[in-house]
Amino acid sequence: MKHEKLSTEAITSSLAVLEGWKLEDDGLAIAKSFKFKNFGAAFAFMTEVAQAAERLDHHPEWFNVYNRVDVRLTTHSAGGVTALDFRLAEAMEKAARIH
Amino acid sequence: MKHEKLSTEAITSSLAVLEGWKLEDDGLAIAKSFKFKNFGAAFAFMTEVAQAAERLDHHPEWFNVYNRVDVRLTTHSAGGVTALDFRLAEAMEKAARIH
Repeated sequence: MKHEKLSTEAITSSLAVLEGWKLEDDGLAIAKSFKFKNFGAAFAFMTEVAQAAERLDHHPEWFNVYNRVDVRLTTHSAGGVTALDFRLAEAMEKAARIH
Repeated sequence: MKHEKLSTEAITSSLAVLEGWKLEDDGLAIAKSFKFKNFGAAFAFMTEVAQAAERLDHHPEWFNVYNRVDVRLTTHSAGGVTALDFRLAEAMEKAARIH
């Protein structure tokens, strides 16, 4: 399925219902920094998200150090943020709630 | 176990036997960029390394996008590179060989 780049208005409105996510200054990606109780919890979160990423065939850019996972989501083929990024963001929120 | 910061000479000599690792310009960390055939292989590598990290109680700083994993190893408590970083680097080399 081809995903179309969302307008800034559509992104802002989708972000409003997600906790802690923001649009990057260049408008090309949404980002969040997750914190967990330790490395094990952070990596358990990443493992669950990795499965969701494979199911969606859409992958995050992410950085991990100990209990922190910084995530950046963008759709390269669309040159910006699409509905796919919000589906992955929602999967991350779900995974973060249980770790 | 307390790990002591290694001298630049000791780091250089340990790096000589590791493929593709380098000392960062500030001398505080060793780093490598790993490439795999796809996201699944990259994350399988990360999963194996995460287990080694927990065993060593020593954790990487790492960034993943699709098939690429950029790794930075340093020992914060020692303010530089220690033997622990080389143990984790060796575990990464071993994990990379099977993915």
